[in-house]
Amino acid sequence: MAERVKALAAAQHAAIELVFHPQCFRSAGHFAGTDAERAAALIEIANDPSFDALWFGRGGYGSCRIAEDALSQLSPAARAKTYLGYSDAGVLLAGLYAKGFPAVVHGPMPADIARGGGEAAVARALSYLSNCAADAVEPTVASAGKVVAFNIMTFSQLIGTPLQPDLTGHVLMLEEVSEYMYRIDRSLFHITSNPAVRRVAGIRLGRCSAIPDNDPDFGQGEVDVVRHWCAKAGIAYLGRADIGHDADNKIVPFGGLATA
Amino acid sequence: MAERVKALAAAQHAAIELVFHPQCFRSAGHFAGTDAERAAALIEIANDPSFDALWFGRGGYGSCRIAEDALSQLSPAARAKTYLGYSDAGVLLAGLYAKGFPAVVHGPMPADIARGGGEAAVARALSYLSNCAADAVEPTVASAGKVVAFNIMTFSQLIGTPLQPDLTGHVLMLEEVSEYMYRIDRSLFHITSNPAVRRVAGIRLGRCSAIPDNDPDFGQGEVDVVRHWCAKAGIAYLGRADIGHDADNKIVPFGGLATA
Repeated sequence: MAERVKALAAAQHAAIELVFHPQCFRSAGHFAGTDAERAAALIEIANDPSFDALWFGRGGYGSCRIAEDALSQLSPAARAKTYLGYSDAGVLLAGLYAKGFPAVVHGPMPADIARGGGEAAVARALSYLSNCAADAVEPTVASAGKVVAFNIMTFSQLIGTPLQPDLTGHVLMLEEVSEYMYRIDRSLFHITSNPAVRRVAGIRLGRCSAIPDNDPDFGQGEVDVVRHWCAKAGIAYLGRADIGHDADNKIVPFGGLATA
Repeated sequence: MAERVKALAAAQHAAIELVFHPQCFRSAGHFAGTDAERAAALIEIANDPSFDALWFGRGGYGSCRIAEDALSQLSPAARAKTYLGYSDAGVLLAGLYAKGFPAVVHGPMPADIARGGGEAAVARALSYLSNCAADAVEPTVASAGKVVAFNIMTFSQLIGTPLQPDLTGHVLMLEEVSEYMYRIDRSLFHITSNPAVRRVAGIRLGRCSAIPDNDPDFGQGEVDVVRHWCAKAGIAYLGRADIGHDADNKIVPFGGLATA
C-alpha cells in the first residue's frame, strides 16, 4: 500500500515528499507496533519541524492507547503542522483540537488506497495536503463556520475524557461503518445526552455503511435515529455530510475553512 | 418464559406475587413496545405503592430511549421499592442510583430462565427479592463498602450524561458479553479516563464471555486489559467479581449491604 501511495503522490504532486515511518510496518498483536513504538513515532514526526504534515496511515484501533502520553510530549513545533486522518485516528484529532492545534483535518488516509476507487480518496488527501484544494473539501464546510467530523463510536468513547474538545457553536459531522443500527442509536443517545455536545450548532450525518442486519428489523434508518436524538436534545439536524468510510470521503478541516 | 418464572416463584416463594405487565409481551421493531408504551409501563409500576419491587424483564437494548423521560416522572412512592436487573437495564439502574434511590440492585432477570441452568439465576433473584438472602449476594460485597455493578459497554455509554452516578469511593464491578477484546479495551480506556470514575475505590472484573475471535490475536486477555487501564488511571484493580451474563450472575445491591 505504501508503494502505491508513494507512486500516486510522485505522479500527481512532484513537490510532495512522502516518508513512511518504519513503525507503520511493525506488528504487535492487534497493533502496528507496541504502544511505546507507536507513541515514539508519533512524537518524533510531530515534533520534527522538517515535516509539514503528519498523515495517519490507517484507522482500525489503538490511538486511545497512546493519546494521553503522546499528546503530553508534543513540542511547540508540533503545532505548525497539518494532522490528517479519520476513523480511530479521530481520538488523536480530538485531542489535538482540544489542545488548540490549528490544522487538524478529517479525511482519507494512505490505507484507503486498498478500497475500490481508493486512488481517488488518496489523491483527494494529497491535493489537500499540497494546496488545500477547494474541491477536496466537504461541500457544506464552506458555509458552515466552525466544523468538526468524527466516527460515531470513536467520538462516543471520548465523551467525558480530557480528549473531548469544546464544540460550542460547531457543526458536528458524524459517520459510521459496520455497527448495528441499535448501536448507532445507543451512541447517538450518548453523544446527544452530553451537556457540552448540546452546545453544538447542529449535527450533519455522513454515511453509515455496512450496517449488519438487525433481527428483528430495527424499524428506523440512520437518518430517523439522528433526527430522533437531535429532537430530544434540542440540537439542530442539518442534513447529510459527504463523509464516510469509503472512497468518496471528503476533507473536513476542524474549525472550518477560516482556520485551515 | 413468564409462565416458567411464575411457576418457579410459586414453588419456592409462596409469599411472592409476580405480575408481568402486558407491555412485556408487546413488540415494536427492536423493542418490547414503543418508547411511549415502555416508559408508561415503567412509570405505572414504579409509582404504584402496592408493588414492592420492579424487576426488569430482560436486557437487550432500549432503556436509554426512555430513561430521561421516565425518570423525570417518578413520584416519591417510587423510591420505596427495589429495582432489579442488569445489562442494558443498567442505564436505568444508573439513573435511579444517581437520583438517590435506596434499593437499586444488579442481578438476574426473568429472561435468564432461558439460559442453561437459568433456573438457578432466577431462583437467586427471587431469594433476594423475598428475603435479601445473603447467599444470593456477590461474595465480595459484604466487605466492599459502597459498590455498584455494570455491563462495560452500557456504563461506557452513560459517561458524561446526566445518568452517570457519582461513584466516589465505590467499588465498580464490570462485566461484558459478546464484545471483541479491542472493544473491551477501548471501553476501558473510556471508563478509566473519566475524571469522576477515577475517584472510585477500585475496579473488580466480572466475567467477559463469548468474546469473538480477534484477527490477529489481540495478545491480551480481559484481566490484562483492565490491569493496564487501572494502572494508567491510578485506579486500584481489586480482582474478579462473581457477575456476568450467565446463570452464575450474583446479586450486587448498589451502595453495598448497608443500604440494601
